[in-house]
Amino acid sequence: MAFQGKKLINNPDDVVTEFIEGLVETYPGLQYLDGFPEVKVVIRADASGATYDKVAVISGGGSGHEPAHAGFVGEGMLTASICGDVFASPSVDSILAGIRAVTGPMGCLLIVMNYTGDRLNFGLAAEQARSEGYKIEMVIVGDDCALPPLLGIAGRRGLAGTIFVNKIAGAAAAAGLSLADVAAEAKRASQMVGTMGVALSVCTLPGQVTSDRLGPGKMELGLGIHGEPGAAVADLQPVDVVVSHVLKQILSSETNYVPITRGNRVVLMINGLGATPVMELMIAAGKTVPKLQLEFGLAVERVYTGSFMTSLDMAGFSISIMKADQTLLQRLDAPTKAPHWPVGSAGNRPPAKIPVPLPPSRSTKSEESLSRPLQLSEQGRILEAAIEAAVNAVIVMRDSLNDWDSKVGDGDCGSTMYSGATAILDDMKKYYPLNDAAETVNEIGSSVRRAMGGTSGVLYNIFSKAAYARLKANSDSTVTAKQWAEAFEAAIDAVSKYGGASAGYRTLLDALIPALSVLKERLTAGDDSSTAFVLSSEAALAGAESTKDMQAQAGRSSYVSAAILATVPDPGAMAAAAWYRAAALAVKAKYEKASS
Amino acid sequence: MAFQGKKLINNPDDVVTEFIEGLVETYPGLQYLDGFPEVKVVIRADASGATYDKVAVISGGGSGHEPAHAGFVGEGMLTASICGDVFASPSVDSILAGIRAVTGPMGCLLIVMNYTGDRLNFGLAAEQARSEGYKIEMVIVGDDCALPPLLGIAGRRGLAGTIFVNKIAGAAAAAGLSLADVAAEAKRASQMVGTMGVALSVCTLPGQVTSDRLGPGKMELGLGIHGEPGAAVADLQPVDVVVSHVLKQILSSETNYVPITRGNRVVLMINGLGATPVMELMIAAGKTVPKLQLEFGLAVERVYTGSFMTSLDMAGFSISIMKADQTLLQRLDAPTKAPHWPVGSAGNRPPAKIPVPLPPSRSTKSEESLSRPLQLSEQGRILEAAIEAAVNAVIVMRDSLNDWDSKVGDGDCGSTMYSGATAILDDMKKYYPLNDAAETVNEIGSSVRRAMGGTSGVLYNIFSKAAYARLKANSDSTVTAKQWAEAFEAAIDAVSKYGGASAGYRTLLDALIPALSVLKERLTAGDDSSTAFVLSSEAALAGAESTKDMQAQAGRSSYVSAAILATVPDPGAMAAAAWYRAAALAVKAKYEKASS
Repeated sequence: MAFQGKKLINNPDDVVTEFIEGLVETYPGLQYLDGFPEVKVVIRADASGATYDKVAVISGGGSGHEPAHAGFVGEGMLTASICGDVFASPSVDSILAGIRAVTGPMGCLLIVMNYTGDRLNFGLAAEQARSEGYKIEMVIVGDDCALPPLLGIAGRRGLAGTIFVNKIAGAAAAAGLSLADVAAEAKRASQMVGTMGVALSVCTLPGQVTSDRLGPGKMELGLGIHGEPGAAVADLQPVDVVVSHVLKQILSSETNYVPITRGNRVVLMINGLGATPVMELMIAAGKTVPKLQLEFGLAVERVYTGSFMTSLDMAGFSISIMKADQTLLQRLDAPTKAPHWPVGSAGNRPPAKIPVPLPPSRSTKSEESLSRPLQLSEQGRILEAAIEAAVNAVIVMRDSLNDWDSKVGDGDCGSTMYSGATAILDDMKKYYPLNDAAETVNEIGSSVRRAMGGTSGVLYNIFSKAAYARLKANSDSTVTAKQWAEAFEAAIDAVSKYGGASAGYRTLLDALIPALSVLKERLTAGDDSSTAFVLSSEAALAGAESTKDMQAQAGRSSYVSAAILATVPDPGAMAAAAWYRAAALAVKAKYEKASS
Repeated sequence: MAFQGKKLINNPDDVVTEFIEGLVETYPGLQYLDGFPEVKVVIRADASGATYDKVAVISGGGSGHEPAHAGFVGEGMLTASICGDVFASPSVDSILAGIRAVTGPMGCLLIVMNYTGDRLNFGLAAEQARSEGYKIEMVIVGDDCALPPLLGIAGRRGLAGTIFVNKIAGAAAAAGLSLADVAAEAKRASQMVGTMGVALSVCTLPGQVTSDRLGPGKMELGLGIHGEPGAAVADLQPVDVVVSHVLKQILSSETNYVPITRGNRVVLMINGLGATPVMELMIAAGKTVPKLQLEFGLAVERVYTGSFMTSLDMAGFSISIMKADQTLLQRLDAPTKAPHWPVGSAGNRPPAKIPVPLPPSRSTKSEESLSRPLQLSEQGRILEAAIEAAVNAVIVMRDSLNDWDSKVGDGDCGSTMYSGATAILDDMKKYYPLNDAAETVNEIGSSVRRAMGGTSGVLYNIFSKAAYARLKANSDSTVTAKQWAEAFEAAIDAVSKYGGASAGYRTLLDALIPALSVLKERLTAGDDSSTAFVLSSEAALAGAESTKDMQAQAGRSSYVSAAILATVPDPGAMAAAAWYRAAALAVKAKYEKASS
């Protein structure tokens, strides 16, 4: 079922010129020659032929392989790129224009992929340029390892290995070498590299229909970069298997395409063909390296993973392997301003993985700090009473909370809160260090984390952790009312920030925020702490009740109509108000008992 | 028609861990924590928490957005990236492990995209880390401009603008700023950026079927990065129209999502969604910049084009626009070793295009050098006779050549050669500067270029240009036989190199190479030049006839069976032998006449 290919383009005839316009908008170091549509040449903005004192390095060919070659123009790599139409060799005039624009007295190396049209057009341009007095050399790259050898001169196509040749030549030129030496390095590099591709889809030319050549579940092996069929079609395999097949083909001692043998050093390129996500390319890279090391006995010195030489929107990748020595690595590592040459592949290889850091040990706490104290302090007794009252208030509300939640949510608010409350009650008896208020609050968070699921579990865990962090910042062992209020505020802020809700969103914050507000107000006014706590708990209750009139802004309730919401308060707010009020009343009772 | 999505992966459950393994193989500056499958954390190999003396900057979230965020880990950008499973928030333990691994005394900034799961898990980890004594701040990024405002807290999703926030925070941290200051810069940046996406396809999760939600000819506007449906589905439009729509939405003064007004400076990101070729991204960039300048009155200071925050294999792109000032540009331009941060976008903007260089003027040649001389020299008369004889030999062979070619090629060899020959004959009478042998050979090339199509036209043009360049290198006005032989050799070498054929490939070289060989041999042996020329032309004829026994290695004949090939010689070789022999005989006749 062929259909019109989908592309985000304008007129299909303008894709190359519009690509170049976008390229120079993106990279201020690039310019183009004002000769559209015939002359499509991208050049370094900082290298003018009249004055350029290095060997110019030019590559090019048909377009549709972006970023190749225009994205590799820049100091240290290409001096110019000559762009043909999609999959069509550039004209001789276009190539000549590029040569004239950047070639100085040191001369110019043309790096051409082994396609007849490119060889002839670049060749003719080279001869014409020579007759104009330019020093010109040309290196032809044919790195394809997919087809059997000796199938005539068209046998070995130029593929992604050309990128390596471009980089090596560019670095040699930047180092000040003569034209003959730059050409010699490029030629040597071209003889060291082999490439083979695998594709999951056929590329679609701009404005044309998408081929259905490759059916579902099939892949093509050993293909070119112009949509030509591959050497074989096979069932799609895990990439592990695909990589093994490709490596065997490239490194075959029968074809002897690349002079690489066991013990050699190599560099590797995993090249996306246009529509392959980075994730898949990296997976292939991760599988290729150990295979090269273990199965072929090669030392992999560099890995370049990305989309460098594409075939329009083809899904798939090619693997290029190049024999490496110190000179060649130096050329590959040399700095370049070419925007699409990959960065970060050079450098020493530390161990790939390091151990997960251990959590800080609890060595600063005494052993008994994580067991229930034998003797409770005054504060410990009050804290215990408050927690007990708070969790019991939640426990008795289970059914009401579930009932309300069944109208505005998924009906499990009561059950979730119950799980957390009973866990706290159990754990407190076992090991809460009640004489240490901060650590006790921390343990409440741990109980919640263990027992409570869902968003409310995470939010109450955040609540406890934030309060704990603030309480722990105090140096005194006794926590003042003001310090409790500060911890409460930190807890509310954290829940608001990470949960994304504010006052009026119909959440537990609509109980807690009014409570905090009154608590701070009363303490500032000089009320005694237990009175302030109780007064603030009335504000919590009132706030929770007021959620009936609120439109939900967060959570599942935001999908429920206002008419239904008006019949029930937010169960999360009601639960929060209930535990807060119970705690306040328990504290007040303890104080009154203590002072009576 | 939903079908199994095609991906080059292994077990779909392992895509994230295998991605990370490939990432660290590619980039030696990165490591990961040894906690697979639960802990998936990529860190800088050169930043250990125990000793790290800058603010650590950590981002992360669900995977499937590669290279984000792990590809942005490196000095000057992220210190660590916490990777969840595909489209799933990482666990609190995983986040905590990352924080512990890289956070030193300066503290840690968490940059989190606005999704509930990420907010809660990073939030809880932040609180836990604080309670362990770490200094932690968190900035939440929600840059989505696709949905109407005030749709609750889930309204503004975090999209590609987060990459800018990561870079700015990373640069601020690298500059040695305090945690509060780094967080403040990150927060400010997050408020300056707006993003909207457009897609041509729906992404396919590893191991799942490909959705057919988006039909042929349709695109989706205002989508997220998790395969969730966009705000609208529309007919596919030219990218020009798409860009205009997206820019209006982002810069809408009604929603006022970004504080950008006419006259502001901005930076632009064109972000591929995973399967979008660089060509299409650059086309979008090239169209976006002038629109921002002319229609919205903005100064576009930087353009970042590439695939930074993807959605698996989705085809499409997002546009992000960020208000920029000097501080922010400095942060964006600051060097980083993060491998996927784009290079080459900073720097001065020279004119985008420069004029096509003019060919070197012919000022070195006198005016008459390009018109037929009134008086021919001895050499000029011989040259004229040779050319005339050569082209006439080709002209009379037209039908024979076509006939042979119809058996082994496309049947136009005679017609093509005839066109070239008649053009040479016409042009010679009009303006060949026959007293200047080099320039005459050059003009033969020009005549061929004008009149002859196909590969043979290019090859004969190359032949002439190469001979010309060699002849021109001589200082004397008279060309010796040895110099002619050298020019002939240069011409043959060029045709062989650029055409890709050698002796035995069944091409014109099988006439010319034996001729050259005999010519050089006879001249070295001391034969007089016209005798050597005639003897060599016999070798040319014999060589052309011998092509009958050759298997074609180049051109269309390589697809023809040996049985058919054996019935005819190669027409190109026969034509070459014919003109060469005719020229030789004409030269000999002239010499004999002159000496008689």
